[in-house]
Amino acid sequence: MKELEPFIRDIPDFPKPGIVFKDITPLLKDPGAFKRTMEILKDKAEALKPDLILSIESRGFLFGGALAYMIDKGQIVARKPGKLPYKADQVSYDLEYGSNTLELHVDAIGKDQRVLIVDDLLATGGTAAACGQLVRKQGGLVAGYSFVVELAFIGGRKKLEPDPVSS
Amino acid sequence: MKELEPFIRDIPDFPKPGIVFKDITPLLKDPGAFKRTMEILKDKAEALKPDLILSIESRGFLFGGALAYMIDKGQIVARKPGKLPYKADQVSYDLEYGSNTLELHVDAIGKDQRVLIVDDLLATGGTAAACGQLVRKQGGLVAGYSFVVELAFIGGRKKLEPDPVSS
Repeated sequence: MKELEPFIRDIPDFPKPGIVFKDITPLLKDPGAFKRTMEILKDKAEALKPDLILSIESRGFLFGGALAYMIDKGQIVARKPGKLPYKADQVSYDLEYGSNTLELHVDAIGKDQRVLIVDDLLATGGTAAACGQLVRKQGGLVAGYSFVVELAFIGGRKKLEPDPVSS
Repeated sequence: MKELEPFIRDIPDFPKPGIVFKDITPLLKDPGAFKRTMEILKDKAEALKPDLILSIESRGFLFGGALAYMIDKGQIVARKPGKLPYKADQVSYDLEYGSNTLELHVDAIGKDQRVLIVDDLLATGGTAAACGQLVRKQGGLVAGYSFVVELAFIGGRKKLEPDPVSS
């Protein structure tokens, strides 16, 4: 959405030299831009008919919570290791350097429940794909992936398709 | 709210022996309970007439994002060190063992803007009080503090009053 681009601030060399970080804090702070963003996410979510919203820690929480409220669905959360207090399934995935791990409570998803995975940014797609694995591991179906910003030149979308991807 | 208590799960000995952790994931997952929680937060927020919602990383994001949408206000985020990409103010505060630090972008709050601080849980009040300090450092006013769960026996509320505190 061209109208929302002014609310995404480019921060050069963050978190390391050569990377241009997409800062969403101006979008969060502007009530009109945030509302418009949420309405777009809502329209896309409704078309995918999810039973649950899966929000990815941390920035995914900012959008996933509002979206779950708006479409009146339950929300589950994928978190970094050691944060979830109950028994959790775990998935690890490779980063450019090293690896990351995400966890999801074992009782998060029922069989064949449709899960929409929400995060702020699609870059390599590694984090989102890991969440897709967690959904399938628990017997759920990936209804789709929804992002606020997509760094299309990285091509992370390829890692997630043929499941529906929107940004 | 008695009606919401069944959706908060007690997890004994997390994150360490002797602590009973209040797990909000059942509340997040139940659309009715989450909606009811958000409506209560909305009613309390409207009475405090904030200009901005300050959400505290990470679980505060789950409620703050939805609340900002519902009351049509901007949202700012207090994050752990190194997460915010732009210039940030910083505050450190003591924990039982060691200390924590939170950051807020330097351009988050305008002079005399009323800020409502939102988090999932009020325990010692140290994290929330640190956010109050950040608000005042930037020339803002603390409209109040809003929590989903309060561990009243710890008495964290005393650290935040006389600013309005609700849970």
